[in-house]
Amino acid sequence: MNANLLATGINTVWVLLCAALVFFMEAGFAFLEAGFIRAKNSLNIVMKVFTDTTVGMLVFYVCGFGLMYGLDRAGLIGTNGFFLSGNLGHLKLGIPLYAYWLFQAAFAVAAASIVSGAVAERMRFAPYIIFTALLTGIIYPLAGHWVWGGGWLSRLGMLDFAGSAVVHALGGFSALAAVWVLGPRQGKYNPDGSVNVIPAHNLHLAFLGTFILWLGWFGFNPGSSLSGLDMNIARIALTTNLAAAAGGTASMLFTLAKWGKPDPSMAMNGALAGLVAITGGCAYVAPPAAVLIGLVAGVLVVVAVGFFDRLHADDPVGAIAVHGVNGTWGILAVGLFAEKGGLFYGGGFHLLGVQALGVATVALLGFAATATVFYLLKKTVGIRVSAQEELEGLDLNEHGVGAYAGLVTEPFYETVLEEPSLSVLQKSVDRITERV
Amino acid sequence: MNANLLATGINTVWVLLCAALVFFMEAGFAFLEAGFIRAKNSLNIVMKVFTDTTVGMLVFYVCGFGLMYGLDRAGLIGTNGFFLSGNLGHLKLGIPLYAYWLFQAAFAVAAASIVSGAVAERMRFAPYIIFTALLTGIIYPLAGHWVWGGGWLSRLGMLDFAGSAVVHALGGFSALAAVWVLGPRQGKYNPDGSVNVIPAHNLHLAFLGTFILWLGWFGFNPGSSLSGLDMNIARIALTTNLAAAAGGTASMLFTLAKWGKPDPSMAMNGALAGLVAITGGCAYVAPPAAVLIGLVAGVLVVVAVGFFDRLHADDPVGAIAVHGVNGTWGILAVGLFAEKGGLFYGGGFHLLGVQALGVATVALLGFAATATVFYLLKKTVGIRVSAQEELEGLDLNEHGVGAYAGLVTEPFYETVLEEPSLSVLQKSVDRITERV
Amino acid sequence: MNANLLATGINTVWVLLCAALVFFMEAGFAFLEAGFIRAKNSLNIVMKVFTDTTVGMLVFYVCGFGLMYGLDRAGLIGTNGFFLSGNLGHLKLGIPLYAYWLFQAAFAVAAASIVSGAVAERMRFAPYIIFTALLTGIIYPLAGHWVWGGGWLSRLGMLDFAGSAVVHALGGFSALAAVWVLGPRQGKYNPDGSVNVIPAHNLHLAFLGTFILWLGWFGFNPGSSLSGLDMNIARIALTTNLAAAAGGTASMLFTLAKWGKPDPSMAMNGALAGLVAITGGCAYVAPPAAVLIGLVAGVLVVVAVGFFDRLHADDPVGAIAVHGVNGTWGILAVGLFAEKGGLFYGGGFHLLGVQALGVATVALLGFAATATVFYLLKKTVGIRVSAQEELEGLDLNEHGVGAYAGLVTEPFYETVLEEPSLSVLQKSVDRITERV
Repeated sequence: MNANLLATGINTVWVLLCAALVFFMEAGFAFLEAGFIRAKNSLNIVMKVFTDTTVGMLVFYVCGFGLMYGLDRAGLIGTNGFFLSGNLGHLKLGIPLYAYWLFQAAFAVAAASIVSGAVAERMRFAPYIIFTALLTGIIYPLAGHWVWGGGWLSRLGMLDFAGSAVVHALGGFSALAAVWVLGPRQGKYNPDGSVNVIPAHNLHLAFLGTFILWLGWFGFNPGSSLSGLDMNIARIALTTNLAAAAGGTASMLFTLAKWGKPDPSMAMNGALAGLVAITGGCAYVAPPAAVLIGLVAGVLVVVAVGFFDRLHADDPVGAIAVHGVNGTWGILAVGLFAEKGGLFYGGGFHLLGVQALGVATVALLGFAATATVFYLLKKTVGIRVSAQEELEGLDLNEHGVGAYAGLVTEPFYETVLEEPSLSVLQKSVDRITERV
Repeated sequence: MNANLLATGINTVWVLLCAALVFFMEAGFAFLEAGFIRAKNSLNIVMKVFTDTTVGMLVFYVCGFGLMYGLDRAGLIGTNGFFLSGNLGHLKLGIPLYAYWLFQAAFAVAAASIVSGAVAERMRFAPYIIFTALLTGIIYPLAGHWVWGGGWLSRLGMLDFAGSAVVHALGGFSALAAVWVLGPRQGKYNPDGSVNVIPAHNLHLAFLGTFILWLGWFGFNPGSSLSGLDMNIARIALTTNLAAAAGGTASMLFTLAKWGKPDPSMAMNGALAGLVAITGGCAYVAPPAAVLIGLVAGVLVVVAVGFFDRLHADDPVGAIAVHGVNGTWGILAVGLFAEKGGLFYGGGFHLLGVQALGVATVALLGFAATATVFYLLKKTVGIRVSAQEELEGLDLNEHGVGAYAGLVTEPFYETVLEEPSLSVLQKSVDRITERV
Repeated sequence: MNANLLATGINTVWVLLCAALVFFMEAGFAFLEAGFIRAKNSLNIVMKVFTDTTVGMLVFYVCGFGLMYGLDRAGLIGTNGFFLSGNLGHLKLGIPLYAYWLFQAAFAVAAASIVSGAVAERMRFAPYIIFTALLTGIIYPLAGHWVWGGGWLSRLGMLDFAGSAVVHALGGFSALAAVWVLGPRQGKYNPDGSVNVIPAHNLHLAFLGTFILWLGWFGFNPGSSLSGLDMNIARIALTTNLAAAAGGTASMLFTLAKWGKPDPSMAMNGALAGLVAITGGCAYVAPPAAVLIGLVAGVLVVVAVGFFDRLHADDPVGAIAVHGVNGTWGILAVGLFAEKGGLFYGGGFHLLGVQALGVATVALLGFAATATVFYLLKKTVGIRVSAQEELEGLDLNEHGVGAYAGLVTEPFYETVLEEPSLSVLQKSVDRITERV
């Protein structure tokens, strides 16, 4: 038994199992987003995340992987590897190409699923399929090529170990553009500009999503080493968890101090913000820095959710705050805390500058590309369900079936209007009367 | 440190972690099935799957493993290894026997759990325990011995890498027999032969099951290599995921084209059908073939669900269509697409013929054995709850408790009769009145 | 490629993936406990488990790990390794320290989560944060040091492979003390001493927790080897699963015999009891002994739940019976069944005596320390919500939001009083009237 063969075996086992964990994050996104919104739209959002996974994987197979990791042209784009064919020797992989592809594909569909939550409760399903195909097939691969595929940002020395920028800032700022073109949900903002709370319909579902996402990050970050023999994986797993724990602790205590009660939604978003923020630097920073990055993320996410709400950027699940803002924070934090090159470690401002440029570019790419696609879709097939369909819920209108046919949902809660339209209330009354 | 020791370590780590993923598929079966049926029977089905897991593992320990992998007699049956004792050197394992056993045991209980969904909402619990013990202890091991344990089908050259036939076609055609002897649920078919839809009570639960099953397949198929040093595991994981993605995409688009709306239940079943179909050939086919196998599976499952419904084979979760039909398709697909011996790769009709014979035999074994067991159970202990118990639900009658004591379930929906009996409605009214 | 490097790689991959599984057990605890209690308190319990995870990991980083595994003083306590700094060479690890830390941290938060279930439905959130910090930061590390960190019990030869005593008996007897100081829930016991059943609000959630916990045990027990090259991991995984299967089977059949119906809650607790009981001896006993240990555990847990209920120790999730009683049984079972030193293997009474002393000491530590902390908290910040808050539910009062805003919960069920107070019923009526 040859030592190289053994090494390849260890690395392949590691990457495949990490890929499985990253794949499972799709369930995390699905249930986190479904739990945070109203019951009447919650099946639609799970279907959208499921479509990210199914359609997204196929599109990434057809063209996404090639654009991301194919032979570089001008530092901008990959040019071969479509349908997993062609010579990909330039990747110099220590594992089989197919294992590498699978790990990357799970990342691509995760980027798409970040956006799905932000457009929940009002976006039509058909244009969403088109958008998710474009995101996993072109937009994400472009950013990925620049930073990880030998493109111009990687040549500048940008450090983004597992994707605070490539996955999260890209997804988060795509979400911002999508929300901007799509407009807010009915009844979310009052004529005087004040904000209505639309409470999460099922926080157990959301917590399930959170736990699954955290679990998946055990694959997402350490797996990005692509090697089970790189002993830095222990540090990566450790910093990842410390940042998550710190983020969750910070947002729990911050909301306790601010509102007198620890807020469950924010506790979840705090842990996720910590995970997003450490993703870029997990391999480069020391444990105390990871704790600090997480603590900042946990506060930042609470502030950012309020900030975007005041801007009337209606993001039902906080995707912009969690992924956009904290992805950005995570990339900048590398410039501050990286043991090699970080400002606080005597590295000066060079790395920090590159990081800032990199994350700004990636965020801008996500924002501009998504705004363009959404604008074109809006002008052609249309992106938003009708006002009536929105009132009745997307599940029945888009799929002909509700998430909970066997459980009684709260008809009043589901409307969430200050002055709920009589017709909806009347339907509830009729429904109950009819049953009794 | 000896290289052989290192190799054994890698393989053992791989198989144990894959076994954990396959074990977790039991949760997938439980929640997929529970979500697809009515709330009032959903706890009973989870208890049945849990019983597959607990009782099934013990029975596989007592006799199943020995019959499947013990020393062969006449190509028909294994003859030692009961209670994990005796000389099992003929297995020539590269991992500890106990790790091998665990992986195999997780497969055995999966086969049983395929049947549980088909007989949901009307089968009694006590005879189910007996049936699941016989399936994991004798019926499944028999098929397993023929194909994987050195039996006659393996000698003919049948290829079934991870069990499209041994697990899925066997389970699916057992389910058909069970449904046939058991009869349909009350109210499912009208006197004029038309079919009533009994909607899934909780599609989030079903999606959770689907995601977990897909995750589990990362262990199911690649783990069947039994080696983390067999670099084909990367291909296996890749083809598995491409087929799942293609299956889910196909059924989503097919129902969108057919009914105007993408159907969530079918999207799930499409992905699962893709997984079932690729299970037999995941190690032998190329990625484009995997996509094709999945696309066909995604359409096939939608057609097959309708077909069995028209036959009045009442299968509440589509187990026959997903596992029976697509397990068969997967085995035939090996004969078409296998890079070595497949019809489309110049291999002629030999392999295809062997595959057809193999899957027909295994399906027939499942059907005949289960029909016999169910018939005998029907004539002795009885297999079906009373009409009144079926109306009230199996959860209260079989376990004295409902799944959702703290949530209000839909009393009207739960009856699903065209003209719901007044007594049931009256109970609902009384229940609400009493509460208010 | 050096063989030592390969070995370290295998071990690190193994421990990190097992750590991920053990981390995921927090989701298992959260949903098991949430499902077993009333909807109105179910979000609070998930928040508590989430706090165990987030705050617990930070505290274990600050001081817990150092007290547990730092340089020993007098066999009682560790003295360095705080903040993961200092020389920890005495641990003689075959894996990176950070990987070891992560695995241990996941254990520490599991110990805390055992207690959370027992104090459900009436304990305030703020003192719970303090308690969980003390448990993961000091109490658990103390027990851990004695048995695993080179302390006095390890020197006596106590065997507790993965923590039947250190994690489970400690957590279970802490729970008993907590329940004792805290008092029972309103309406649980009648003035005449008879016991009211407060049914589980969502058994699907509880089953989800059970499946996740069982999955996590694939990491918990085999991962405790800390080596993927120790071929005993196969035996450990096997005995773990056989005991779980036997426990679930035994409690299912025992309740069927006792009450005429197989009880779902007990089936879950039976499997968990089997897992708890095998945790101490999984590496030392043979498969048949594992089955026996599990069978006893499955019966024991049913008996113990009734026993503690008659003592009016109100433990809504059965944590004392599952973890306290069966952790104790598991440690004693090592003294009976260990292949080296067990009574039934000719080892005499020495090991059994050490085991009995060890588990008694650890249980006493858990009980005394927790009783003291709870007593002090009671006398200072207060540990219990007001009677009115308890009636209305902790979710609304402690977090300002319910778990299921979008689903209708059972107002009558939620009170669980023999003669529900009119005010609560009136609220339900008002709530419905207001809506209609």
